[in-house]
Amino acid sequence: MTEKSTDVTRRLLSRRAFTTTAATAAAIAPFAVASQATAEPAGKTAGKTAGEPGDVRRITLYADNLPDGQMGYGLEPGKPTIPGPLIEMIEGETLEIELVNNTDVTASLHAHGVDYETTSDGTRMNNSVVEPGSRYVYTWRTHTPATRPDGTIAPGSAGYWHYHDHVVGTDHGTGGILRGLYGPLVVRRTGDILPDKTFTVVFNDMKTNNLTQAPDFTAELGERVEFIVIAHGNFFHTFHIHGHRWADNRTGMLKDPQDQSRIIDTKTTGPAESFGFQVIAGELVGPGMWMYHCHVQSHSDMGMAGTLMVTDANGNVPGHSMDGS
Amino acid sequence: MTEKSTDVTRRLLSRRAFTTTAATAAAIAPFAVASQATAEPAGKTAGKTAGEPGDVRRITLYADNLPDGQMGYGLEPGKPTIPGPLIEMIEGETLEIELVNNTDVTASLHAHGVDYETTSDGTRMNNSVVEPGSRYVYTWRTHTPATRPDGTIAPGSAGYWHYHDHVVGTDHGTGGILRGLYGPLVVRRTGDILPDKTFTVVFNDMKTNNLTQAPDFTAELGERVEFIVIAHGNFFHTFHIHGHRWADNRTGMLKDPQDQSRIIDTKTTGPAESFGFQVIAGELVGPGMWMYHCHVQSHSDMGMAGTLMVTDANGNVPGHSMDGS
Amino acid sequence: MTEKSTDVTRRLLSRRAFTTTAATAAAIAPFAVASQATAEPAGKTAGKTAGEPGDVRRITLYADNLPDGQMGYGLEPGKPTIPGPLIEMIEGETLEIELVNNTDVTASLHAHGVDYETTSDGTRMNNSVVEPGSRYVYTWRTHTPATRPDGTIAPGSAGYWHYHDHVVGTDHGTGGILRGLYGPLVVRRTGDILPDKTFTVVFNDMKTNNLTQAPDFTAELGERVEFIVIAHGNFFHTFHIHGHRWADNRTGMLKDPQDQSRIIDTKTTGPAESFGFQVIAGELVGPGMWMYHCHVQSHSDMGMAGTLMVTDANGNVPGHSMDGS
Repeated sequence: MTEKSTDVTRRLLSRRAFTTTAATAAAIAPFAVASQATAEPAGKTAGKTAGEPGDVRRITLYADNLPDGQMGYGLEPGKPTIPGPLIEMIEGETLEIELVNNTDVTASLHAHGVDYETTSDGTRMNNSVVEPGSRYVYTWRTHTPATRPDGTIAPGSAGYWHYHDHVVGTDHGTGGILRGLYGPLVVRRTGDILPDKTFTVVFNDMKTNNLTQAPDFTAELGERVEFIVIAHGNFFHTFHIHGHRWADNRTGMLKDPQDQSRIIDTKTTGPAESFGFQVIAGELVGPGMWMYHCHVQSHSDMGMAGTLMVTDANGNVPGHSMDGS
Repeated sequence: MTEKSTDVTRRLLSRRAFTTTAATAAAIAPFAVASQATAEPAGKTAGKTAGEPGDVRRITLYADNLPDGQMGYGLEPGKPTIPGPLIEMIEGETLEIELVNNTDVTASLHAHGVDYETTSDGTRMNNSVVEPGSRYVYTWRTHTPATRPDGTIAPGSAGYWHYHDHVVGTDHGTGGILRGLYGPLVVRRTGDILPDKTFTVVFNDMKTNNLTQAPDFTAELGERVEFIVIAHGNFFHTFHIHGHRWADNRTGMLKDPQDQSRIIDTKTTGPAESFGFQVIAGELVGPGMWMYHCHVQSHSDMGMAGTLMVTDANGNVPGHSMDGS
Repeated sequence: MTEKSTDVTRRLLSRRAFTTTAATAAAIAPFAVASQATAEPAGKTAGKTAGEPGDVRRITLYADNLPDGQMGYGLEPGKPTIPGPLIEMIEGETLEIELVNNTDVTASLHAHGVDYETTSDGTRMNNSVVEPGSRYVYTWRTHTPATRPDGTIAPGSAGYWHYHDHVVGTDHGTGGILRGLYGPLVVRRTGDILPDKTFTVVFNDMKTNNLTQAPDFTAELGERVEFIVIAHGNFFHTFHIHGHRWADNRTGMLKDPQDQSRIIDTKTTGPAESFGFQVIAGELVGPGMWMYHCHVQSHSDMGMAGTLMVTDANGNVPGHSMDGS
């Protein structure tokens, strides 16, 4: 990777995406991208909302092998993460992703939620896969809600989506997904509230983010924490978090106090489903070690359980040493 | 079947139901009903909406064996399809379905979503099953939303529902469903937008519409395509379609641009669940071969994947020969 | 249990909770609490709504062994039920639950949906478990919807929730849940419509309320019947009821006739998910034996099917003797 392409990548990806990605990766994998990003102060984005969509952006994404036989996407060559980097868009934007395939097998990039022509479908059927050592540009477009000529509504692209390989192992990417070729994609609507931190949880068969022990996440009391939950593989899961709840709708938040969306703390999530929500860390319940886990009993017992550690004003979790964080 | 009963059936079922049924059946099974229906021009129903409910309608439905040991419902004797014919109602209507059991086992008809007395329940417990060689009339009623005397709302019958046997094999119809005795039922609300085409996808254990290879569907660019998705059997599935999305609510469409319904392209569907939605074929993504599949990896790898072929103005799918369509 | 604590319990729990609990328990288990409650006349609560939240309430809950190796929670020592007693709260209330562990293993109480500090989390990680022969007070708080300083909405606590052990067998309570340590929890919003009867259905692996044969429930034609559906264990289920439908939202009811919530009669429910709804027994379909069951075919075939028996004005179900009720 040349300096130039790094610069381009950095310029085109928002700083938020970078720091969030780094924070997430640091929590979940020893092979996280090296990053100069430091933890952002609590409330930095308080009251901030998604801005106006920008011009066409272009990033480079690298598919790489990991030493243990796994694979991952990364923003720098040789530095894949599982999940891959958080990609954020604002409705109306176009993102060109050049995928550089540094693995030894044909790989691809298939996105959920965004608009793409068949040439960016990421399937063998549509000839949009990448041979080892090659590169290929995928174009993702997004759009705002609009009214069609017949009066019906074309919904906007906003949502908690994800991307993954669609060709490694089988024509459905079963091998690529199993080995780690997946990541979160968020399309925000102008005006959507921005979180202070984003954590991604991927239940991939009996692993979480491809780890046998689900990762722990840390947030300060009062921070606006966003979770993106994705499932992959062959099994169904129920994501649950202790002490926090969300609305079962587009944003995970109520539009107004009369909103009849169901408030939940547990949600069935099947392969390739995804959802997201924002909570205020420790709101009404205080700091502490708050478990999140798959509530399928055998799954949590096997390690699909981690903690959201909500620290107090001194950076401590009452009653717990912070060795592990 | 006499000419007369055929005529009655034809008159009472809307023409749309016929052509839609034929189109669906043609795509999915060699034993489709012979039909004079031709492909409807794109946009024929553009801007059309469900009208006012009619009087009591009556149709005859035949349960028949298929040569391969499967069973199906059909609108003519000896011509069963899997899924059975699309039955459409408008809120407020009553439909009397005379089921003629031409199979060699006791069979029945159980509907989801509509109003029926226990005599039309289709269960052995309620003595509403049909012996081989016999016939029985089931009455389905529907109603519009109404306000009860206590101020609460009685919801209307509109929805994407389905019907199935409830007695073959076990008292829950496990054998009948496994062998193909199921079909789609749509109740529309007056004013609901009508689609140009309706496709039904039933994930029944590891088969789709009882086929080991999921069927392909064809639509012209810009046509309003309705999908009805149903699951049956013992397993859970996640229906996914490439390049298209829908709203996770009653109609699959947003009521207005501020509607907070979650926009999704993947949805968990368990046995006897059903949902439906309408998309504009190729909207914002163009013509092409758009995969739909169960996203449980082992399921798609085993054949639970087909294509929505969106043709351009010349009837072609760019980059693909149309041999298979 | 002293007379005094019994009195306190009785005074602090609403009479409705008592009678509902007794009715439910009577239908489902031979070890139901002895109760002087009689069936309430139909429509007793018609037009009644949840009132204003009260002061802090305190109840005592007993975890007890059952003779057959199962375990349950109960409001009196030695009289556990499976599911445990229905606990009802009104948004804004605080409930202190003293758990008396009369079993021979460490047990706990973990709630979904309500606000609790880590000391009331019910997990070993947070030192909130109860040794055999000991007692421990858990504090559950609830709150109404509110607007945060940044303009976002903090959703209220209202919902169909549940409680369960989190420590017997494994650190996720797998053994406790399997053996019966679970129960329903409803938080109502002031103004919510109250039901005449509440029935709880818990699909716990291949049992319903830990019974190999799902229980039957009885309601009079026109009664407002509330179902609370919960899943536990390792499997996913689809709850289905014949002849009745509900809205897939917070209350299971439409807010107004234009409400776009999906009307359903079948819903996927995974481990620790819960939902509830109210129907008018026999509305538009009449009295009768109305099956409810898990629609996973092998599950219903194995006994996960019961009936809602809707009686006519004379207390009969037409066409059926009422021996079994």
